[in-house]
Amino acid sequence: MTTAGHTNHADHPEQAGQTEHTSHPEHTSHPEHTGHPEHADQAGMVSVESHLAAILAAIKPLPPRDLALADALGAVLVSDVTARWALPSFDNSSMDGYAVRASDVAGASEQQPVVLPVKGEVPAGDTGAYRLVPGSAMKIMTGAPLPADADAVVPVELTDGGADQVAIRQAVPAGASVRRVGSDARPGDVLLPAGTRLGAAHVGLLAAAGLASVQARPRPRVAAISTGNELVEPGGALVPGQIWESNASMIAAAARQAGCPAQRRAIVPDDTDAVLAALREALPTADLLVTTGGVSMGGEHDVVKATLASLGTVSFRKVAMQPGMPQGFGTIGPDATPIFTLPGNPVSAYVSFFLFVAPALDALQGHYRERASPVQAVLTQPVRSPAHRRSYLRCLLDRAAGEVTPLSGQSSHQLATLARANALAIVPEQVTELPAGASVDVLELP
Amino acid sequence: MTTAGHTNHADHPEQAGQTEHTSHPEHTSHPEHTGHPEHADQAGMVSVESHLAAILAAIKPLPPRDLALADALGAVLVSDVTARWALPSFDNSSMDGYAVRASDVAGASEQQPVVLPVKGEVPAGDTGAYRLVPGSAMKIMTGAPLPADADAVVPVELTDGGADQVAIRQAVPAGASVRRVGSDARPGDVLLPAGTRLGAAHVGLLAAAGLASVQARPRPRVAAISTGNELVEPGGALVPGQIWESNASMIAAAARQAGCPAQRRAIVPDDTDAVLAALREALPTADLLVTTGGVSMGGEHDVVKATLASLGTVSFRKVAMQPGMPQGFGTIGPDATPIFTLPGNPVSAYVSFFLFVAPALDALQGHYRERASPVQAVLTQPVRSPAHRRSYLRCLLDRAAGEVTPLSGQSSHQLATLARANALAIVPEQVTELPAGASVDVLELP
Repeated sequence: MTTAGHTNHADHPEQAGQTEHTSHPEHTSHPEHTGHPEHADQAGMVSVESHLAAILAAIKPLPPRDLALADALGAVLVSDVTARWALPSFDNSSMDGYAVRASDVAGASEQQPVVLPVKGEVPAGDTGAYRLVPGSAMKIMTGAPLPADADAVVPVELTDGGADQVAIRQAVPAGASVRRVGSDARPGDVLLPAGTRLGAAHVGLLAAAGLASVQARPRPRVAAISTGNELVEPGGALVPGQIWESNASMIAAAARQAGCPAQRRAIVPDDTDAVLAALREALPTADLLVTTGGVSMGGEHDVVKATLASLGTVSFRKVAMQPGMPQGFGTIGPDATPIFTLPGNPVSAYVSFFLFVAPALDALQGHYRERASPVQAVLTQPVRSPAHRRSYLRCLLDRAAGEVTPLSGQSSHQLATLARANALAIVPEQVTELPAGASVDVLELP
Repeated sequence: MTTAGHTNHADHPEQAGQTEHTSHPEHTSHPEHTGHPEHADQAGMVSVESHLAAILAAIKPLPPRDLALADALGAVLVSDVTARWALPSFDNSSMDGYAVRASDVAGASEQQPVVLPVKGEVPAGDTGAYRLVPGSAMKIMTGAPLPADADAVVPVELTDGGADQVAIRQAVPAGASVRRVGSDARPGDVLLPAGTRLGAAHVGLLAAAGLASVQARPRPRVAAISTGNELVEPGGALVPGQIWESNASMIAAAARQAGCPAQRRAIVPDDTDAVLAALREALPTADLLVTTGGVSMGGEHDVVKATLASLGTVSFRKVAMQPGMPQGFGTIGPDATPIFTLPGNPVSAYVSFFLFVAPALDALQGHYRERASPVQAVLTQPVRSPAHRRSYLRCLLDRAAGEVTPLSGQSSHQLATLARANALAIVPEQVTELPAGASVDVLELP
């Protein structure tokens, strides 16, 4: 087994609060290799920040596309959207009532109503040209165009609601209950600035401004691929040595939860040709690929790593974190599609998605924002953590109480604990234990 | 115009910070009608809480369905999901290394390594039955089944990585680097309790437990319908009196943002038959309907209200809020599908969606939770608000500073202001003005 000196650490299963975890001496004895990305960081580990920075530096935002409004939610504008026309495009009534000249009703009061003849009606959607005869009123609906020579609307509740003539019980100033042309936006106004991630109100505004589509970077499409001879489709029977595939379902769901369309691809066996074929098939409809498994050893079973290392565009690193130490990132295919090779332990894969893939999805839209400062909370129980690695402990955060409770079962295979958690408590690299009552940074899970 | 005495108020356009808004005397003079829902509340207005309570009381949760895991994100469990099998289902290695008997390596140290012959290898996914010969080691991969008679794994980094024989430099206790059968879950354990809204980790756990599908209440399907002769599809040309349809696009996007599949239906003209046909067409593929427009007047143009009032299952009310006063809610069709008739002003429609429709979507999954207490923030500017109505002012919340700035342009047609806002500041019903520096409740927008 000649590659043993170059193997990476497997993803690591220490229990928080457990004392018997073994120490992890760094490998320093193997010869230096250059020009071979999988060896670049073997002498040590890189920090979470350094790995993330490398990912963000490598990602080129997707080109903007012309997106129909129905597909625009979550897309990110690359340039300002400006109003081509005034909004509203004509003076119109903001109330159901009567269009008048304000001067004709200046003397109206409860005691002495002004009575005007009603000369017609302007319903919303009427595109005829109306003109108010001075000394008369016209019935008008909310949104209907204000007749020429009218300058105010008297709401129906300030009148007797008459059909042929109307008694107006209150004076209104010129401009009352009138939405002026351009009062929402004037031609040339910036409606939405570049960099806006489109929410529902933005989509509404684009429609109101007459746009049926918009140039924007779409949500990246994610393909999730899991590898391993031990994997079986859920629903089928197992024999000892096999497990049900869960990572690709989970990663696809996590991508959807982040707003992205995502596909779970078929399970891929530990075979270089099969891995290459799966990647090739997934590429045309994916903007980002995630594989899980096949990256922990340097040996013949380490099929994802072996396959991708031979392409020379994907780097494998040990990141100083727990869970999730063995990380791979690079690009493949004609469009330099980003690919993440996440560890096969489900909890490691999930935490890695959260820390690295989710920011990459934002970066693909040119919209990465550093996370707002983590929540601070007080530990209700003591915790332990391996030296030289930052721990992300699954926990229950009680935000109101400012307390965080680490859950039992912190091994990387213990998915049930992840399913119960609502947050990750962070124990820094240099810290190996913290007492109850210590304050920690906490990341809330989506 | 004989129905004038029964008209509702149109949705209301006061400007925050503007003084000249007209007052709104209550109608008290019309005769009492009974058995006709649209008149029930005309004498007064109901509170936001009362309207929401009526909605929640009327909604029956959707029946659970058998959902494939790919469709399960966001669905809500109706019963506990329990483990049918132990997870993991067999003892396996948590590291790449060598399976041993702990007693065989008890004396190992850096100075005096224990050397054992390597008798075979257990890759992950191997389903053969292995047995460790005492006094030997077997190479083993992460996730591979622990051979019978082995009780520990020595990680490869504590060895020389040998192929035919291995020098082990550190003793390990029995159980080291072994994931015991059932250490994630035992048969019968509750994996996910009833009421869980499925997130990515939950989907992963279901897959890991062997389930290809799950019984759960799906995300409700929303159909958004807008009515009005004045409406034109975005992208087309306008003549004065027409506007581009934006409400249905916005409501569909808001529903999608809330995680629900949503369809924007074609624009419906102000015609009873057309409205009925549109509702009939939308019903078979919708779990909740939203219309906008056609509800402000009691007259012949008030087509949504007239159409639905005749069915007798939808009530129309004035809610003491601004924007969004005229609200309709009820059920239609063979499945008593909830229907909301929102006002046609875009801002009113959006705020109404946020306050009433979004909770209804949760209730359809049996998952309504009262909103966590609103954020408190300090006004940077004075505001005005109409008497007897709770104002929801579009504003910019600076959470870190604890400050909230009302935006200019608070009329209900001013969608550009909504698109700039990240929150709604609440001014209570009995308050008509607040100075800069006053503390207000603030709802953050999604």
